Amino acid sequence: MDVNTAREKLVSYQKKAAAYLHALELLNFDGATSAPRGSASTRGETMAILSGELYAISTSAEVAETLFFLESVREELTAEEARIVYLLQKDSKKIAKIPRDLYVAYRAQVVRADDVWHRAKESSDYALFSPELEKIFDMTKEIASNVEPDSDPYDFCLHEYEEGLNSRKLDDFFDTLRERISPLLRAISKVPQQSDAIRKGFFAASDQEKLSRYLMDIIGLDPEHVALSTTEHPFTISLGSHLDERITTHYYEDDFASSMYSVIHEGGHALYETGCDDRFVFTALDGGTAMSIHESQSRFYENIIGRSRAFCSLVFPKVREIFPEQMKGYSAEDLYRAVNRVEPSLIRTESDEVTYCFHIMIRYELEKRLMHGELTVRDLPQEWNRLYREYLGVEVPNDKVGVLQDTHWSGGMIGYFPSYALGNAYGAQFFREMKKEIDVEKCILSGNLAPINEWNRKNIWQFGKLYTPDELIRRITGGEFDPAVYADYLTEKYSEIYGL
Amino acid sequence: MDVNTAREKLVSYQKKAAAYLHALELLNFDGATSAPRGSASTRGETMAILSGELYAISTSAEVAETLFFLESVREELTAEEARIVYLLQKDSKKIAKIPRDLYVAYRAQVVRADDVWHRAKESSDYALFSPELEKIFDMTKEIASNVEPDSDPYDFCLHEYEEGLNSRKLDDFFDTLRERISPLLRAISKVPQQSDAIRKGFFAASDQEKLSRYLMDIIGLDPEHVALSTTEHPFTISLGSHLDERITTHYYEDDFASSMYSVIHEGGHALYETGCDDRFVFTALDGGTAMSIHESQSRFYENIIGRSRAFCSLVFPKVREIFPEQMKGYSAEDLYRAVNRVEPSLIRTESDEVTYCFHIMIRYELEKRLMHGELTVRDLPQEWNRLYREYLGVEVPNDKVGVLQDTHWSGGMIGYFPSYALGNAYGAQFFREMKKEIDVEKCILSGNLAPINEWNRKNIWQFGKLYTPDELIRRITGGEFDPAVYADYLTEKYSEIYGL
Repeated sequence: MDVNTAREKLVSYQKKAAAYLHALELLNFDGATSAPRGSASTRGETMAILSGELYAISTSAEVAETLFFLESVREELTAEEARIVYLLQKDSKKIAKIPRDLYVAYRAQVVRADDVWHRAKESSDYALFSPELEKIFDMTKEIASNVEPDSDPYDFCLHEYEEGLNSRKLDDFFDTLRERISPLLRAISKVPQQSDAIRKGFFAASDQEKLSRYLMDIIGLDPEHVALSTTEHPFTISLGSHLDERITTHYYEDDFASSMYSVIHEGGHALYETGCDDRFVFTALDGGTAMSIHESQSRFYENIIGRSRAFCSLVFPKVREIFPEQMKGYSAEDLYRAVNRVEPSLIRTESDEVTYCFHIMIRYELEKRLMHGELTVRDLPQEWNRLYREYLGVEVPNDKVGVLQDTHWSGGMIGYFPSYALGNAYGAQFFREMKKEIDVEKCILSGNLAPINEWNRKNIWQFGKLYTPDELIRRITGGEFDPAVYADYLTEKYSEIYGL
Repeated sequence: MDVNTAREKLVSYQKKAAAYLHALELLNFDGATSAPRGSASTRGETMAILSGELYAISTSAEVAETLFFLESVREELTAEEARIVYLLQKDSKKIAKIPRDLYVAYRAQVVRADDVWHRAKESSDYALFSPELEKIFDMTKEIASNVEPDSDPYDFCLHEYEEGLNSRKLDDFFDTLRERISPLLRAISKVPQQSDAIRKGFFAASDQEKLSRYLMDIIGLDPEHVALSTTEHPFTISLGSHLDERITTHYYEDDFASSMYSVIHEGGHALYETGCDDRFVFTALDGGTAMSIHESQSRFYENIIGRSRAFCSLVFPKVREIFPEQMKGYSAEDLYRAVNRVEPSLIRTESDEVTYCFHIMIRYELEKRLMHGELTVRDLPQEWNRLYREYLGVEVPNDKVGVLQDTHWSGGMIGYFPSYALGNAYGAQFFREMKKEIDVEKCILSGNLAPINEWNRKNIWQFGKLYTPDELIRRITGGEFDPAVYADYLTEKYSEIYGL
């Protein structure tokens, strides 16, 4: 084999893999958006077959030889090519260690579990979901013991979402947060609460959709490449490449702010993806480098931008235009205070910035114990409820608003949750750097987010998976990850709002 | 090879082919429903790759050997197995005759053309679409000359939608219709017109959606297996098997009857598919046997049922409940007369039962001449407009409501249109038989369509592709296809409405 033949093979393999992933992700997306319920079994069969085909391609001798050869001539490759070879080899070695039957059965199980989760959540019936979840944890452990027999099985899960992440780093991170945020939360609980009356009322879904379109435009999403749908649980997905992004939201007609911040959050994910350099299309470098960096962007737009005083002041006239009756007597400042009201609550996605990390800590602790065999899936709800009492002081009245609220575990995403908390902290560090170059508040007030997006594009988005999170943080900040920056951001913002 | 090994291979091949088709159809469906516009190129790449893979599987030596062996032991197979082997062999022989590059390029071209068609229709810009359409006709001719070098290339197209159909049969059929319907249309044009004022006004899309749900329920669609979406052009598609059906509609807010009859029409397609015996899932027998039989069901529910006096009387209370202001002063009889108003017009899907077949005849004549090389794609609009003047006496003001109105050609569906007219005629023949066993009017008036659906299921739906259209017609009527039955149905119905 010569280098150019190998290069061509590499390009064509990546294109083929992208096509299969496109189909698989679209089947997922369809299941969550348009599909009738009775289609889950057919969809599961199709996904099992196509993922089996992808498995065969990814583990083929031809691909292995090509990658092996390219690694042997590493010095002749560009930095991008070398990174592609590294990522593909890591992935194909991983897949090759998973028995094909297990790989295929796992894909089918995830589809089935997701379907059952939807039904279980609707009827708040954990017993219905429990056997499916148990299978997912069992299969994940089996996959972990095949791929990284010498690692901690939960660390294996964490690696899926961020290279090199482990629970030691997370334990330290969460300890810092707990130390700094618990006193803040206690202080807030002792002063008068902010009103959120402005959020409440009747807001027709069709009107909320108009607000979604406006927000997508304001934050700079390109409608040629980003489409909006509605689902039970909001998410973002890339189909085939970053040229085709889908974001979803859920309209609650008694609270317009819920979908508003879902759209901005998912919009942040889509900005990151669509900002990737177009030359990475159909390569292993396309899209975000880790879920934590992804969440740093989504949570940056949702909170640091979206929940800023400037942003509330920018969008309030539009909110009032769409909901003239409901907004009577309210001001932009009322909106700002309502969407920053701090209050321990049951639902992660609806929670404020201060209590948010506790929701993550609870999930982190539970999934870690489940993966370590220190907790059974059967006992999960009671532990969930106990931790909500302990960390947030709230009683969980039923599993629908408790352990069944999130879609992640039903989708096999064990080890994902910490990405949200890391993302919050990474985002705060990036924000501190951004402010050295840009007058962020002025940009927002003038309705021109382009300089903000351009900064993110230049520093983060364009690189796709070229750099690891650690490398990105070092490039941007010149230093290491520092969770204190996030704690400072929260302390400053909420001390002002609550007059502490 | 022994029979049982070959049987197992047959089952697994059909499952795999169904999975690829599922993905390909879903990519199509997604392109028409949720996808952002800038995603067409990625989607085209994925479809080209996956259809290339399907091509390789379908033309593999293993599949050919299995089918060849099974054909050689035909007497040991069940009738169903024999039919499966026959259909798959026909299909795989056909595909094997198409060069792989042409096959893949054609799939990609169809995706691109469909995207361009959407843009061209919006701006009524035929020049934009023309080169894409030309490529589709050229490729179709090339495919035809590869697969059936000795056949008429247009007959090849017709075979795609109904086994054994040819333009001689269609020429005779359309001659009969013209002879019988032209005098009826002339007679109608000489008496006072029916009012369609009841259809006009403002009908919010969200309210129309409520009506859609009601109609889907009334005609007996199972929401576990049939979902509704909105698209530019309504259609029905099966994803993976008949357990997953999607119907689409388009809401025009100035005319509620348009979507109403789209939903019933597409609902008829979905009833046929979902009524197929479940043992045919993942086999070549799943789904409808020919597009003409498909249209016999969709047009049966749309017109023979949906545009009957009894049906208008059944649904009018619901229409009034959803649109109380708009329905003030109107009765069920007004609805009946409005949706049966006969008037030469521009848009096929909006046209009445009497003029409908002329829309088909125009398309039939044009696509036949295009396939015969007697007309160029460039000259198509002026011929379209000339025929609308000649057959229907209407002037086409622009291509959006002229040659660009339908999605079929952009999707590569040349030879499809005659299915609609044949379907009308088949449906009328089936209806005559049904009435011998069932009091159809009484069923509709009581809101219980179950006996009607059960008759269709027993006689048509359950068999999937087991019988050809000719065989089905013979089983049901005991005789041959007779277009006079349809002409009689139209003459009787519209003579009463117009008092001829």
